[in-house]
Amino acid sequence: MSPARSPLHDILAPQSIAIVGASADPTKRGYKAMVGLIKDGYKGAIYPINPKADMVLGVKTLPSIEALPGPVDLALICTPAASVPGLLAECGRKGVKGAVILASGFKETGPEGARLEQQVLEAARAGGVRVIGPNTSGMFNLHHKVNLLALANVKAGDIGFISQSGNMLLALVLEAEHNGHVGFSTYVGPGNQTDVGFNDYLRYLGEDDNTKVATLYVEGFRDGQRFLQVARETTAKKPVVVYKSGSTEAGRKAAASHTGALAGSYAMTVDLLRQAGVSVVQHSDEILPVAEGLGLMQSARGKRVAVISDGGGQATIASDRLAEAGLVLAELSEATRRRLGTILFPQASLVNPVDVAGSTDANPALLAECMAIVADDDNVDAVFLVGMFGGYGIRFAEDLLGGEMRGAESMIELGRRCGKPLVIYSLYEAVKPAPLRRLHEAGLPVYSSIEHAVRVLSALGERGLYLQSRERQAAVPEVVADAAMLAMFARAENEGRDLYEYEAKALLRAHGIAVADEVVVRDPSELADAAQRFGDQALAMKVVSRDILHKSDAGGVKLNLRGASALREAYEQIMDACRRYDPKADIRGVLLTPMARKGTEVIVGVVRDPIFGPVLMFGLGGIFVEVLEDVAFRAIPLSRHDAQSMVAQIRGRKILEGARGELPVDQAALVELLLRISGIVAAYPQLSELDLNPVIAYHDGYAVVDARIIINPAVL
Amino acid sequence: MSPARSPLHDILAPQSIAIVGASADPTKRGYKAMVGLIKDGYKGAIYPINPKADMVLGVKTLPSIEALPGPVDLALICTPAASVPGLLAECGRKGVKGAVILASGFKETGPEGARLEQQVLEAARAGGVRVIGPNTSGMFNLHHKVNLLALANVKAGDIGFISQSGNMLLALVLEAEHNGHVGFSTYVGPGNQTDVGFNDYLRYLGEDDNTKVATLYVEGFRDGQRFLQVARETTAKKPVVVYKSGSTEAGRKAAASHTGALAGSYAMTVDLLRQAGVSVVQHSDEILPVAEGLGLMQSARGKRVAVISDGGGQATIASDRLAEAGLVLAELSEATRRRLGTILFPQASLVNPVDVAGSTDANPALLAECMAIVADDDNVDAVFLVGMFGGYGIRFAEDLLGGEMRGAESMIELGRRCGKPLVIYSLYEAVKPAPLRRLHEAGLPVYSSIEHAVRVLSALGERGLYLQSRERQAAVPEVVADAAMLAMFARAENEGRDLYEYEAKALLRAHGIAVADEVVVRDPSELADAAQRFGDQALAMKVVSRDILHKSDAGGVKLNLRGASALREAYEQIMDACRRYDPKADIRGVLLTPMARKGTEVIVGVVRDPIFGPVLMFGLGGIFVEVLEDVAFRAIPLSRHDAQSMVAQIRGRKILEGARGELPVDQAALVELLLRISGIVAAYPQLSELDLNPVIAYHDGYAVVDARIIINPAVL
Repeated sequence: MSPARSPLHDILAPQSIAIVGASADPTKRGYKAMVGLIKDGYKGAIYPINPKADMVLGVKTLPSIEALPGPVDLALICTPAASVPGLLAECGRKGVKGAVILASGFKETGPEGARLEQQVLEAARAGGVRVIGPNTSGMFNLHHKVNLLALANVKAGDIGFISQSGNMLLALVLEAEHNGHVGFSTYVGPGNQTDVGFNDYLRYLGEDDNTKVATLYVEGFRDGQRFLQVARETTAKKPVVVYKSGSTEAGRKAAASHTGALAGSYAMTVDLLRQAGVSVVQHSDEILPVAEGLGLMQSARGKRVAVISDGGGQATIASDRLAEAGLVLAELSEATRRRLGTILFPQASLVNPVDVAGSTDANPALLAECMAIVADDDNVDAVFLVGMFGGYGIRFAEDLLGGEMRGAESMIELGRRCGKPLVIYSLYEAVKPAPLRRLHEAGLPVYSSIEHAVRVLSALGERGLYLQSRERQAAVPEVVADAAMLAMFARAENEGRDLYEYEAKALLRAHGIAVADEVVVRDPSELADAAQRFGDQALAMKVVSRDILHKSDAGGVKLNLRGASALREAYEQIMDACRRYDPKADIRGVLLTPMARKGTEVIVGVVRDPIFGPVLMFGLGGIFVEVLEDVAFRAIPLSRHDAQSMVAQIRGRKILEGARGELPVDQAALVELLLRISGIVAAYPQLSELDLNPVIAYHDGYAVVDARIIINPAVL
Repeated sequence: MSPARSPLHDILAPQSIAIVGASADPTKRGYKAMVGLIKDGYKGAIYPINPKADMVLGVKTLPSIEALPGPVDLALICTPAASVPGLLAECGRKGVKGAVILASGFKETGPEGARLEQQVLEAARAGGVRVIGPNTSGMFNLHHKVNLLALANVKAGDIGFISQSGNMLLALVLEAEHNGHVGFSTYVGPGNQTDVGFNDYLRYLGEDDNTKVATLYVEGFRDGQRFLQVARETTAKKPVVVYKSGSTEAGRKAAASHTGALAGSYAMTVDLLRQAGVSVVQHSDEILPVAEGLGLMQSARGKRVAVISDGGGQATIASDRLAEAGLVLAELSEATRRRLGTILFPQASLVNPVDVAGSTDANPALLAECMAIVADDDNVDAVFLVGMFGGYGIRFAEDLLGGEMRGAESMIELGRRCGKPLVIYSLYEAVKPAPLRRLHEAGLPVYSSIEHAVRVLSALGERGLYLQSRERQAAVPEVVADAAMLAMFARAENEGRDLYEYEAKALLRAHGIAVADEVVVRDPSELADAAQRFGDQALAMKVVSRDILHKSDAGGVKLNLRGASALREAYEQIMDACRRYDPKADIRGVLLTPMARKGTEVIVGVVRDPIFGPVLMFGLGGIFVEVLEDVAFRAIPLSRHDAQSMVAQIRGRKILEGARGELPVDQAALVELLLRISGIVAAYPQLSELDLNPVIAYHDGYAVVDARIIINPAVL
């Protein structure tokens, strides 16, 4: 079942390392890397390579890669960009498994750099050398003492980090050093990802036993579709945290000049990552807190949080932040409130957020009792302690420290026993008092910001719900490609055109999608029959032409037609208008269809994204999509949970739920529609893009009113 | 011109203090306050009052307030709630100027507590004692050594803080202690604001020379209208920072059980605070960074930021955050880029965000030169340094420290000279290296989070633009109450009704607002004349009745009518329907008006908010207001800047700018409309509520289609 181990293990936990461009100049990377290896006590062989120096840091140098005594696992190449293709060729000849290329000056600088980067890739492929970078800050693997960045004061620990920003690594390392209790396993800077990309690194971190949580700073993906696949595999085993830059146009431009990353739509990327179970953080200062929390704590079964607070103001802030993050204040059971009432002062507020109102001033261990009581409540998925725990001994009286230490032990014991996460915010965290140090030691993180703590709670809840959704995968409608439909695609391809609207609708209809009744009229003589067929229904008439994509603009659409004479008149008008619009247009007739009943306009689209592959989009029509860009994305194929969650996700969902006195629309039918479209796209690789705009959603079902399908000549 | 000094100066900087409930028990507030005063070296007289003890901390006690040798400035009352009314009466008799009441158990606990609180207020008023609290954490004034909270390690400094959460004070104090360079002037917990409210405290902080920035944590305002007035006065002199809780329903409920605060709409509160020049922060962990930045730095002339970075990833993150915050990356002039090019490596990115790409690795002082160059550019309003400045000596080589120290001096000098704020993010901030300590000492703050630094930049830009908008107050249309209109209000009041629609429109028309032409038809015999008057325009007919508020629901509206016979038929149908709807309705006829041309629906509303007074609301009609709640609020009267900014603020502004191929609407006319409505509301106190829904906005002008005005009997 499981695929072969990632080839990166040999390279990222190397037995031997060559430093190409080893140097005695302390400001050079070729010096620092040597220092890092030697100081940390790296056990493998180190080969400094420098034709101009005899010794570096007491180690005898070699004049060239060719002079290596045998194959090595990793070469760190510290020389300028222009030298790299030749050096890689040498590495290939010598059997070097992987090379880390620090130099910048490749595709991030323009076309000339891109050509050089192509040469790097070719040399690497030819010689069978895997390439990390170029334009990378380097790598470390602290459990194997491979510290090529020569970072001081960085602890070996659970967090694996892949970052297209070396400064972001430094920021996290300094943050970890400062809070004193977070360590790292492997770091790699993928740089321009010429060869090895985020998907490969993620697979490695997923397999690496030293890594409990995989954390990524991403400017752009190279093979997004493969990344999503690896992410789905990895998130089943361990949390994956991603910060994706480029949430704005300004950020996308900055990323392009930094790593040459061509970032796609941020909103799409975030949706697809979440679909794969990734915890997406949106602020850079939340990366470490969220990674730490996900790495240390069990996920929550849901989003219902019980807040225990010794300060009403902060309980209020916590309530606001929880609600903004989509979490809910758990409704405590009557029994829970009674139990709290027996240990707290009468003025305490027993409704969540629980405010102890001074009850714990003389006995801080009571906070742990409150946490145990609410953790016991089936309505509670996570417990959030907010306030000054850890600081009672400082603020009130030194002899309260004993009670705090006992409280800390109770919390630790509760955390191990209760199966629910305990998230703690203390305004004394920065002071690092003994009770909080004890909590950290025992693996209970304490946060110094309510905002960060809430991000952690949110990530724990999302991860728990995601894991549950994986477990109960419900059936999705099966779509098998139909011979007649395949022939239809082939015909269109032969004629060098996309599908006609009526063909697109035929495809949908063939796979159980509700499409309005319609006839194609190829000659005005057929109009009378058509009029009869639809009786007294008002009809819409639309031109059928491969050359006219925007039918309304061309005057190719007439609405609300009744009776044969109205149809004839409309037919003539359409033909006149379209011939004026494009005299060379190949016009095959018109499509007649009853006017759709009034309902709620939604749109469904499919694109084959160059980075992420086939992606389905859903949104409300009109201003929601055009002005507010309120749409949801999922990679195809969709699970039932995916389809449900995308309908639930859009901001305009109130409209679907029946705002302004309307009946709610049939969301189950929309979910079914999305699943069938997903199935069709998977079954017909010939389909390149699809656009159902609008689909009219009703209280009972829906109707596809317009359909456009672009075909993918590559697969025909 | 300037009003009398706030009476709070005597109370918050007291010459003498009585501690009612002084105690020798170290866990009691009556002990702690004594310790705080004595340890900090308070110079005034201290009178511990306790009938059961002789001495407290070596000071002779008095048995009662009555035993005081004479009047004192401040009494700190540490006894339980029930004792407070009696004690206040004693204070009154003794000439105590103000009392701080710590006890909780008042209106925040329910009706019984509210009654007790009323007694407190009455006793205070009767005796002329101003009350701080009840349910307050207390106060301090560090410049006068009045440390009633006995906080250790809190420095006297520039930040005044008023907080309905004592824990929030503790959080800020600990944060300040931890970063080592922020101090406080006065703190007060207003608690339930029975007597002294936020507006009084703000006025005091505005007058207090020791306070450079007034900072508030607010659960709810008591007299919001007065607060806004004081805020406008104060923000002209110094920055005012407000964190307002209750952004969600969950938070509003929590606040109600904490301080009994009845918070109004969060969105409205934020809009009104910003209108008054207040810097609103939305995350609790941003309060101190923003207050510090506003207190130390000059405001920016605008929103154009130049980023100087030594790490491309963090430049990318900064770009995203800046754009999300509504700031823009300044477009650097050709000359600026050329100057940067002469000092940086060729691979540096000279387009904002400037990425030095290694140029500063061996010479960190170059960063200061880059800052000076971009600060010199007229297109730049603020400079943002992002990266590892301060850490070069740690990360690269110790001897770079000298260059960093020189760089820091250059930055300090630049900050003093260039008239633009320099905001610095360093990933080494938490490590507190010497160059960053030097910057802090010199009043240049350094932030440890890109996100917080961007909040500071945003606040500096908003404050700068606000101060400019105050300076160039443009003329607004003058509205003087008209005798005929006043008579119309009086008539309606006499008849015990609100204004008829046609009266409301007459009022608008009388003050230059564009209202569709219309006639009131009181008898069917007038219909023929009316039909003739409007020629072949399609007409709308609406019932005129004081009893029918929702005309459409009653069948009281008919649209698209043409010709006398259609009018007669519609008239009969409306009369029938309305009589069925409400047989007792007083029907005065119908209003006839031409159907409005198609355009963009907007709404304008006025309410007299119980907390903030008259408030104008503007938004797009339909789903924007009903589903998305996309509306802007401003307190009346509006300045021209207010009206312009509220049109620019709504999320749906793209629609006004001409989305989906439409022409942009006439925003100048809408601004004029808002200003005239503001003038009308100010001129007619009889007007209680107004609702223009819809107003149809066109490329050229607008038309008010429906108008409803509720009158305010109190002022007639």
